[in-house]
Amino acid sequence: MNAILSPSRPKPSEATISDLTTELSRRFGDRVSTSAAIREQHGHTLTWVKNQPPDIVFYARTTEEVSEIVKLCAEKRVPIVPFGTGTSLEGHINAPDGGVCIDLSLMKRIIAVHEEDLDCVVEAGVTRKELNEHLRDKGLFFPIDPGADASIGGMVATRASGTNAVRYGTMKDVVLSLTVVLPTGEIVKTSSRARKSSAGYDLTRLMIGSEGTLGIVTEITLKLNGIPEAISAGICPFPTVKAACDAVILTIQSGIPMARIELLDEVQVKAVNLHSKLDLPESPLLLLEFHGSEAGVQEQAERFGEIAAEFTDKPFVWATKPEERSRLWQARHDAYWAARGLRPGAQSVATDVCVPISRLAECVAETKRDILESGMIAPIVGHVGDGNFHVQPLVNADDPAEVAACEAFVDRLVKRAVAMEGTCTGEHGVGQKKMKYLEIEHGADALNLMRVLKRAMDPHNIMNPGKIVAL
Amino acid sequence: MNAILSPSRPKPSEATISDLTTELSRRFGDRVSTSAAIREQHGHTLTWVKNQPPDIVFYARTTEEVSEIVKLCAEKRVPIVPFGTGTSLEGHINAPDGGVCIDLSLMKRIIAVHEEDLDCVVEAGVTRKELNEHLRDKGLFFPIDPGADASIGGMVATRASGTNAVRYGTMKDVVLSLTVVLPTGEIVKTSSRARKSSAGYDLTRLMIGSEGTLGIVTEITLKLNGIPEAISAGICPFPTVKAACDAVILTIQSGIPMARIELLDEVQVKAVNLHSKLDLPESPLLLLEFHGSEAGVQEQAERFGEIAAEFTDKPFVWATKPEERSRLWQARHDAYWAARGLRPGAQSVATDVCVPISRLAECVAETKRDILESGMIAPIVGHVGDGNFHVQPLVNADDPAEVAACEAFVDRLVKRAVAMEGTCTGEHGVGQKKMKYLEIEHGADALNLMRVLKRAMDPHNIMNPGKIVAL
Repeated sequence: MNAILSPSRPKPSEATISDLTTELSRRFGDRVSTSAAIREQHGHTLTWVKNQPPDIVFYARTTEEVSEIVKLCAEKRVPIVPFGTGTSLEGHINAPDGGVCIDLSLMKRIIAVHEEDLDCVVEAGVTRKELNEHLRDKGLFFPIDPGADASIGGMVATRASGTNAVRYGTMKDVVLSLTVVLPTGEIVKTSSRARKSSAGYDLTRLMIGSEGTLGIVTEITLKLNGIPEAISAGICPFPTVKAACDAVILTIQSGIPMARIELLDEVQVKAVNLHSKLDLPESPLLLLEFHGSEAGVQEQAERFGEIAAEFTDKPFVWATKPEERSRLWQARHDAYWAARGLRPGAQSVATDVCVPISRLAECVAETKRDILESGMIAPIVGHVGDGNFHVQPLVNADDPAEVAACEAFVDRLVKRAVAMEGTCTGEHGVGQKKMKYLEIEHGADALNLMRVLKRAMDPHNIMNPGKIVAL
Repeated sequence: MNAILSPSRPKPSEATISDLTTELSRRFGDRVSTSAAIREQHGHTLTWVKNQPPDIVFYARTTEEVSEIVKLCAEKRVPIVPFGTGTSLEGHINAPDGGVCIDLSLMKRIIAVHEEDLDCVVEAGVTRKELNEHLRDKGLFFPIDPGADASIGGMVATRASGTNAVRYGTMKDVVLSLTVVLPTGEIVKTSSRARKSSAGYDLTRLMIGSEGTLGIVTEITLKLNGIPEAISAGICPFPTVKAACDAVILTIQSGIPMARIELLDEVQVKAVNLHSKLDLPESPLLLLEFHGSEAGVQEQAERFGEIAAEFTDKPFVWATKPEERSRLWQARHDAYWAARGLRPGAQSVATDVCVPISRLAECVAETKRDILESGMIAPIVGHVGDGNFHVQPLVNADDPAEVAACEAFVDRLVKRAVAMEGTCTGEHGVGQKKMKYLEIEHGADALNLMRVLKRAMDPHNIMNPGKIVAL
């Protein structure tokens, strides 16, 4: 491969942006905005990553419109940043070089639900909750659940997963096909609706996780699942995070088809209790969910109970009523906002890593020790069935020493995970903040291969520049 | 994207090959062969695809050796064709431009089995049966089963699947990471051992299904599964293939976690009876397998029985003893050779397509009618839980009219599947014979994107040229 490539696009001039604004406004009227508030809202807003707004925000309604804008921007060498709901966590939607943000939130059509094939076709702006609302009466559901009510397009972009991934996989496993606007403005469909194919390169998975740097996903064909006949959930407290992780390891190894197996450390439990007005025991907890037939769920729960008893003598509480389950999972999903409540006014840092499950207990325990030694408030939650966990330090963003200490902590966390044969991010994605870790994780040659692909598909570096592999 | 690219490599001269042979022989001794028999054995041998042998066969022992040879070939612009067991079906291993075949069958180390993580690391030449033999005592198994005892490297290359895919996925779902020698000779690792990651472009899945055209896979990290506590198998006869397919559709929709659900049409059953000395009822059959706990398997089987009863009044026979199950599945796996017995001396054509399951009954029924009208002998077997089926016409390869009629039949089959939103190949891959269908299936722009990727990674077009996207 060639050595690292240099940028081939100068930052667009004020005149270019001004001309483009005039042209777009003439064509699309009030679906084009340059107001400061709208622009800022389309940069990163959720965590400590600095907000970098685009120059122009355009609300697209169709794939053809996206194609049209991309062609225009390609001609003028203007950067493009696709936007779904803005819930990404690592600076994915920032516009360090300005340019046009293409907001896809108006693209909300559910184009087809093929009940017989257990699949559906949706536009990129449909959110996961909107989709599930639409599907409920058909007895189907879309299982990927990253917590936030993200858009399906955004979830494709970041290769999202979440609480159900241990059973149902991640976005890479549930997407059958994508409609993508390439950096040239060409519209391609990456695959057919067949369940499997060996017909050429896997363009679908090349796009999944590419964070808008190789093209803009406008339509998605998704696998669906039947709503399970029976669902039951439970909470199990453990004396230490290590004991909880050891129980998870044995559960996964024993082949119990867990639907969800989530860890909350005692700091996170405290935050959740405060935020969601619950009275969960303030020790490390596993939140569990089982899907299957009535008999199957019962059997799974009993088996898990036997395993858990080896690692804890605390009571094991079951919630079979839908409203109890909902309350429990809502509490889990509120973890991010609950954590922020532990230090009002502080900025939240949301980071994640993932390790082979045999190293999970060790990795979490070392990280807890590191948090303690650093004197930080940093709750831990995790999709531990996959070896994936999140740490959420709360920092005073105005205190450079605290920020530096947190940066150093994240650095140690990532290097710890990578040293254990893990990854710098299990599901949040690279965005801006994890770019520096790609070489540590993949090595220079593999990272360079990513650059070769980016350069081949986007030679003018207009698609979400400054993310994943900055050219 | 640029328009279709033209070849950038002339066919190597006799002098180049002669020099290369000398150089390789000096370095590697008798692991380099130019004997006609060895060369022919390394071209396509299994079906009607014409044998095109390489100029040189090299038996590699290590990733570093593969890298060394690739560098040498890159410098001299000599084509390279990777070889596992030679069981691919569409001409994948032919060498239309000659060059060096790198045979990986000596790379048989099982480098690690991580029982706690349910994964293992193997060299590319390990076959699936060898791996399962190694794993058996540990209570683990590798589920992907394409019938032939293919090498794991070859299975990665073709994105193989087979009988267990309906439950356990295809190669794209079970590979965690790959070691790949790129067309430059650089060695990269595509991912970590973490169960999931959002750390950059999915190089793993870019390589899976690339059939050696983007690099050579030398090591594979694979997910494993625990051997199920209980397995039971069964046979269910149906009056028509349509009735059998309709039963499959309802079974999949009802969410029964089938491990295997295979269709044999009455022609194939006859062939199997003759070949494997069985007395299966000579009507369309479903062969089934259920994995789970004792109670779970029982429950699945009962539910399937209820569904099947809606579509057939024939008896439903169970095989719970391991030796009965083995005999049944051996018969299924012998389908290819059994079919050849229906017309001794004829050449076998092995082809496959895959459609959304709602179109399966219709697609198979139309194909049966087409076979009848064409006057061919062409048994059908299928991994019908995925909507994937195989047709195996038996033709006199010396009769141009028969060959032309068969080509026309395959053409209709592919177009029928693509028109039903399916794919030209569910699992065999593109090789040489399905290349002409990629544009029909994907469209010119998506195919051109594949060419852009190929050109970026292999600018001199040395990696398995003339396959998938001939530059």
